[in-house]
Amino acid sequence: MPQTIGLLLFGGAEELDFVGPWEVFTVSRMVLESQEQSAHTCVLVSQLGKTVQCAKGMRVETDHAFADAPALDVMLVPGGQGTRKEVTNQDLLKWVRDTAETCRWVTSVCTGSLILTSAGPAKGKRVTTHWNFVKTLRERNEASEVIDNARYVRDGNVVTAAGVSAGIDMALWLIGQMYSPEHARTVQRYMEYDPAPPYAGLV
Amino acid sequence: MPQTIGLLLFGGAEELDFVGPWEVFTVSRMVLESQEQSAHTCVLVSQLGKTVQCAKGMRVETDHAFADAPALDVMLVPGGQGTRKEVTNQDLLKWVRDTAETCRWVTSVCTGSLILTSAGPAKGKRVTTHWNFVKTLRERNEASEVIDNARYVRDGNVVTAAGVSAGIDMALWLIGQMYSPEHARTVQRYMEYDPAPPYAGLV
Repeated sequence: MPQTIGLLLFGGAEELDFVGPWEVFTVSRMVLESQEQSAHTCVLVSQLGKTVQCAKGMRVETDHAFADAPALDVMLVPGGQGTRKEVTNQDLLKWVRDTAETCRWVTSVCTGSLILTSAGPAKGKRVTTHWNFVKTLRERNEASEVIDNARYVRDGNVVTAAGVSAGIDMALWLIGQMYSPEHARTVQRYMEYDPAPPYAGLV
Repeated sequence: MPQTIGLLLFGGAEELDFVGPWEVFTVSRMVLESQEQSAHTCVLVSQLGKTVQCAKGMRVETDHAFADAPALDVMLVPGGQGTRKEVTNQDLLKWVRDTAETCRWVTSVCTGSLILTSAGPAKGKRVTTHWNFVKTLRERNEASEVIDNARYVRDGNVVTAAGVSAGIDMALWLIGQMYSPEHARTVQRYMEYDPAPPYAGLV
């Protein structure tokens, strides 16, 4: 049966947090279809199903409101400035909690893990987040352990990625689990993802 | 004087081709502003200034039409399925050619280089593109040389990146040139861009 991957959007969601994984998931779909294999669909969900203004100003239309969203097999929650507000949005937390119940995989990128721990799916789990929010997440005392210096952390069916670009690595890992490592490598090749950051060395 | 970075969108533009650099450019702006330094602005431009449906289905609103777009200091042209049509869109090619004349940097990601060579700015230059379109671009005989196996190629003020994710590396390099390598490393750190693709090795 075809699976559905849903990416949750909200005002102030960080652009690359969800577009990196979106690219991975939709290229994966394209590759599977070209091989005449059954493929997942990808949808963008927001509370009202309208246009969302992201953290850095990009305006993206969403496909579904909570009220008309399909059941999801995979959920992805991005981070961004908007999580500070959404982490107390009871309607959003309830949707995440209820929707996650029947998901095969529940995932986040960056500070999206604050939403997953608050909402429930990642409560008591080992998680990660953006390096600058590791302390914050530890102080919230909802996760059993907050791991730093990892691109992504899996605990059961919950997979949390570190900041922003780490979502690309996590999404590639995930489609490798859903289909095969070989499939993930084909997607990686299409995206020409053999990264070479300039000016070597982090600050 | 504040600079303006414009990203060109069109129907069928590949999502990560422009959102990767968008994230780099807008984080750069955020970092500069936090340091009370003069920062560039970032705008999305399309022919009609309306919502654009991207290659993998995401719908993104644009800020300006060609008719009301500001002068640009940096132009970025993404690739994607849509370039097949746009490479013969005379209105778009003219806008790219005219706008590029006063740009400090003219850049592309993926098959965006086909638009830059057709429109003029990259004609007779050394360029690169997505690995699967190197042959196509060579056969068009517009560039002086089409280089493969490079993340990005600079020839004068024209910088062309390889496929999809290569735009992130190129954009980081570019802000290192516009400001400083140290600034680029700060942006890289915010984006937590120390990539670690899973399932090592390309197909």
